[in-house]
Amino acid sequence: MARKLNFSSGPAALPEAVLKRAQGALLDLDGSGIGILEHSHRGPEFLRVLERTEAAIREVGKIEDDFAVLFVTAGATHHFSLVPRSFLGPEETADYCHTGVWSGKAMDEARRIGNVHVACTGEPGFAAVPSAFAWSAAPRYVHYTSNETIFGTQWQAPPPAPALLVCDASSDLFSRPLVLANHALVYAGAQKNLGPSGISLVIARRDFLETGRADLPPLEQYKTYASERSLYNTPNTFGVYMIGEVVAWIQGEGGLEEMAARNARKAALLYDFLDQSRAFRAHAEPGSRSLMNVTFRGATKAIEETLLSRAEERGLSGLRGHRSVGGMRASIYNAFPEAGVRQLVELLDEIERELP
Amino acid sequence: MARKLNFSSGPAALPEAVLKRAQGALLDLDGSGIGILEHSHRGPEFLRVLERTEAAIREVGKIEDDFAVLFVTAGATHHFSLVPRSFLGPEETADYCHTGVWSGKAMDEARRIGNVHVACTGEPGFAAVPSAFAWSAAPRYVHYTSNETIFGTQWQAPPPAPALLVCDASSDLFSRPLVLANHALVYAGAQKNLGPSGISLVIARRDFLETGRADLPPLEQYKTYASERSLYNTPNTFGVYMIGEVVAWIQGEGGLEEMAARNARKAALLYDFLDQSRAFRAHAEPGSRSLMNVTFRGATKAIEETLLSRAEERGLSGLRGHRSVGGMRASIYNAFPEAGVRQLVELLDEIERELP
Repeated sequence: MARKLNFSSGPAALPEAVLKRAQGALLDLDGSGIGILEHSHRGPEFLRVLERTEAAIREVGKIEDDFAVLFVTAGATHHFSLVPRSFLGPEETADYCHTGVWSGKAMDEARRIGNVHVACTGEPGFAAVPSAFAWSAAPRYVHYTSNETIFGTQWQAPPPAPALLVCDASSDLFSRPLVLANHALVYAGAQKNLGPSGISLVIARRDFLETGRADLPPLEQYKTYASERSLYNTPNTFGVYMIGEVVAWIQGEGGLEEMAARNARKAALLYDFLDQSRAFRAHAEPGSRSLMNVTFRGATKAIEETLLSRAEERGLSGLRGHRSVGGMRASIYNAFPEAGVRQLVELLDEIERELP
Repeated sequence: MARKLNFSSGPAALPEAVLKRAQGALLDLDGSGIGILEHSHRGPEFLRVLERTEAAIREVGKIEDDFAVLFVTAGATHHFSLVPRSFLGPEETADYCHTGVWSGKAMDEARRIGNVHVACTGEPGFAAVPSAFAWSAAPRYVHYTSNETIFGTQWQAPPPAPALLVCDASSDLFSRPLVLANHALVYAGAQKNLGPSGISLVIARRDFLETGRADLPPLEQYKTYASERSLYNTPNTFGVYMIGEVVAWIQGEGGLEEMAARNARKAALLYDFLDQSRAFRAHAEPGSRSLMNVTFRGATKAIEETLLSRAEERGLSGLRGHRSVGGMRASIYNAFPEAGVRQLVELLDEIERELP
């Protein structure tokens, strides 16, 4: 079997070493004689998995005990409503930074609960993260999407907000050192840099969690996950295991500084080519460019189709851009190899050289 | 590696043949060169997985198109609140059949939304499913838990309700032929007979789904899953794959009639022994006994501890009863082999023979 180069935006490429370990764990977790999918979530073997996963996350992310580390059986979309439901009163206002499709969906859900103030926006083209801000008087929190997978932009640093930040970090958590200062809560669907879909990782200030509504169903209160160690009900046990293995892999490769260096190097290969190309151009503006999702267009539709079909022939999979924006998107998360990026650049260059 | 006999109540034993296929799919799904965890949920390879999983469920369960088949990234506990939130108005009443811990939790959540009428109860001991019913005047729906994992009871047939039924079938769905007559909605966490934790299967009448509240977040409306083919957001793709493989295994083994026959045979081995034993006795009453979870006690605490420690020594794992009731519990879902049940009976018999 030849593994393809998987440019998918998520679910996305995972480290092959982790997948091979997981193959063994399906039949026998840690020599227990029972597979990871089959272990009781209350048994000692899974509890060890949970403990080591949390410990690895804390070590890699340098997360102190004032923040809780939670595993929620849901994707990021569920947090779009869970966050305002817990933390936004009907008369209160939350500020949202609008950088594309995902922040838009997050705002839609918050508007069901309370007031949403758009403090900054990348409209109309979402080619850059905003640099001008108009905050509301006393926002309950400020929400931002650290990386925009569809438009291919990324905050280089958190927005300079006048209130605690809530961050949807689904597509760049643990791709670079974690900044928790001024953050109340960070949530991330796992299926980009962390593991499989169907589980999300939440890192949240314990004192902030105590300010949430207490009359919601227990599963819809973040503090339940904190007080019950994410075991109020049966968690996604395989998801927890996989996140633990992926984060241990990050640790073994040199941690978040090393991931950031690799990701910067990989993205630069692409952006540097695009910036001198006649056949292709990057969508996002310098200073706002995502290191995770490089979005670009061809000079003509024909060039785009040539690229996409030739890429598929050569085992470069998943390059077509999101249906809402078209063009191409190369998602190059932690586990995507630098050699694969070089293959893509070679293909782009080949097409470039065929131009008249 | 010697695989243990896994009596866990869930997550629980899965068919070894399925686990071995999944090992391959982790690195390469269906010869695609990309693993099941890494495939985009919008790509053709995963869409084929989704299609074949739904098709297998419909074929095995004999489910016609008037019922939708949905995959929800959540366990059964989430449905405890999702069902009343969608279908129970604040002034309306739903009838609940109370058979133990799980029905109790389901009622707790429904009481946040509307009125709960306990139409029948197995209290105080929950050793039998109720046989006396007092329905409310016009229940919005009647909720029951088809199998009670903690007390080890099971409805042999759905309760004779005056309204549409909602069934928590987490622990016995697809262990016997599926009865959908008079049912509005059936939900089941996957981690017993269907697959891994972190995903649930919902089988629901399409016309009933249309009667749900339309002002909830899309992810909290069952009809979103129906209209979006469970792809409104990224689903638990591995969970969908695993359910498909497990249900295909059921199909290959002879379908639900064959599962029911095997499960009856396995449970009878245990209950027949318990009914003539001096050392052990079954908890549940004949007529209400679960074929999935056989709960039993020792004549003395010492006998129980002898059994539990000797079982662990011999690779019979997970026999300790739920912490709320004590004693022992042998969970013998579809994938648990009859030979394993015989080994347990032999051990029980060995301890019996040591009695003075």
